[in-house]
Amino acid sequence: MARGEITGNTASLCPGYAQANLVILPKDWAFDFLLFGLRNKQACPILEILDAGDPVSKILAPGADVRDELPRYRLWLGGELVDEPTDIRHLWREDLVSFYLGCSFSFEDALKAAGLPVRHQEMGVNVPMYRTKLPAAPAGRLHGPLVVSMRPMPPDLVEKAHLVSGDFAEAHGQPVHAGDPAEIGIADLDRPEYGDPVHMHPGEVPVFWACGVTPQAALAASRVEFAITHAPGHMFITDIKAEDLGGKALLACGRS
Amino acid sequence: MARGEITGNTASLCPGYAQANLVILPKDWAFDFLLFGLRNKQACPILEILDAGDPVSKILAPGADVRDELPRYRLWLGGELVDEPTDIRHLWREDLVSFYLGCSFSFEDALKAAGLPVRHQEMGVNVPMYRTKLPAAPAGRLHGPLVVSMRPMPPDLVEKAHLVSGDFAEAHGQPVHAGDPAEIGIADLDRPEYGDPVHMHPGEVPVFWACGVTPQAALAASRVEFAITHAPGHMFITDIKAEDLGGKALLACGRS
Repeated sequence: MARGEITGNTASLCPGYAQANLVILPKDWAFDFLLFGLRNKQACPILEILDAGDPVSKILAPGADVRDELPRYRLWLGGELVDEPTDIRHLWREDLVSFYLGCSFSFEDALKAAGLPVRHQEMGVNVPMYRTKLPAAPAGRLHGPLVVSMRPMPPDLVEKAHLVSGDFAEAHGQPVHAGDPAEIGIADLDRPEYGDPVHMHPGEVPVFWACGVTPQAALAASRVEFAITHAPGHMFITDIKAEDLGGKALLACGRS
Repeated sequence: MARGEITGNTASLCPGYAQANLVILPKDWAFDFLLFGLRNKQACPILEILDAGDPVSKILAPGADVRDELPRYRLWLGGELVDEPTDIRHLWREDLVSFYLGCSFSFEDALKAAGLPVRHQEMGVNVPMYRTKLPAAPAGRLHGPLVVSMRPMPPDLVEKAHLVSGDFAEAHGQPVHAGDPAEIGIADLDRPEYGDPVHMHPGEVPVFWACGVTPQAALAASRVEFAITHAPGHMFITDIKAEDLGGKALLACGRS
């Protein structure tokens, strides 16, 4: 991604390439967060972790500086969202650890290729995301709800959506729920906590995937004193083809 | 394992059940170590991680207290080995994080079932383990050499050893080297840094597997101020069948 050129959401950008969620935390919180990620693999598939103070990706997009590669970031202080900058160089500290997590945008090309609708792309908006009543597995000081993204599907295509996305374990894999939103604690599909609402066509079923915004809900609920994340839908675009993510992800935490 | 009843090595104990390496570190070192483990998956396949201050396994052997379940431990201060106690209750602190890592003893039954020799079991001794000249991938403050275990094999069975152990990715998987020990920096097979030497039969080839003692070499090289590990060969015996380790290990870092 060229620096500062794009500040909108990345839902349909760079077709075929994997996208990633971003969480940057002080090292004091890094163990709790890594454990949170490992305990919530479907919501937080870890793709790459940088050493404290190192802002440069080694695996997902070698040489890319995490401080200006995303179109929009979020700054969190004490669990409160305080700013949405397009560059975070002025916020950088030597104790900051960057985590890249898989993103469901990575399987949307495969959904479309299989004939499945991707409504927010059709509408040119961000994917709708919701906080659920399902708790994420806590880790140390971190706790919070599972956040999900939603894509409406005709009922006869729900199984296909499971099959296609199931091949992308490093991008949240298959859905966690399909059908009545109330069952997972979502009161109103038209009022997502993150992203934009989308139209449901008559007879369509809402299909929900675990979402990489789950860490943002956790750091808010846990009142983490300092954190930087991507702005929902404004992702880190990698140099890795979405279908290669599984193999590459094996390397991702390591140089081994 | 019953408390205090066994203080010898566990190489042939509880056939069929997975065994685990143990590393206990202050939380200040936990992120560095978890990253070290993820970056060195073959040497450090992570099976379970407990929260800081929690000594009780949830997955590998539910209810087992890590402080007296192993036959013998090692206490490390400033990277120096200072004691080999059989119980660590007196050393416990609320900031200690326990990591369980896969162990090659877990695939030895499968090797034997496939007609492959397991010499140290035949001899009733501990497996020989060596520091190599191959560096482990560093992580934060942690660095050190790859440690390997060795089992001699007739040359025509080396490929079979690869195939059989390759099915146990959570227990170090296939060998990292077979043949000339000098190629990986081992000067004398009769003088292992850990465990016991074993007889090589005429014509046999030494076969080397990544070893869960690698973290011990790293915490010594990195002069970690406080650490507790298993004593080499004196493992945590789990309630999980070795062949189920892969599936269970998916859960292992998490309750998800």
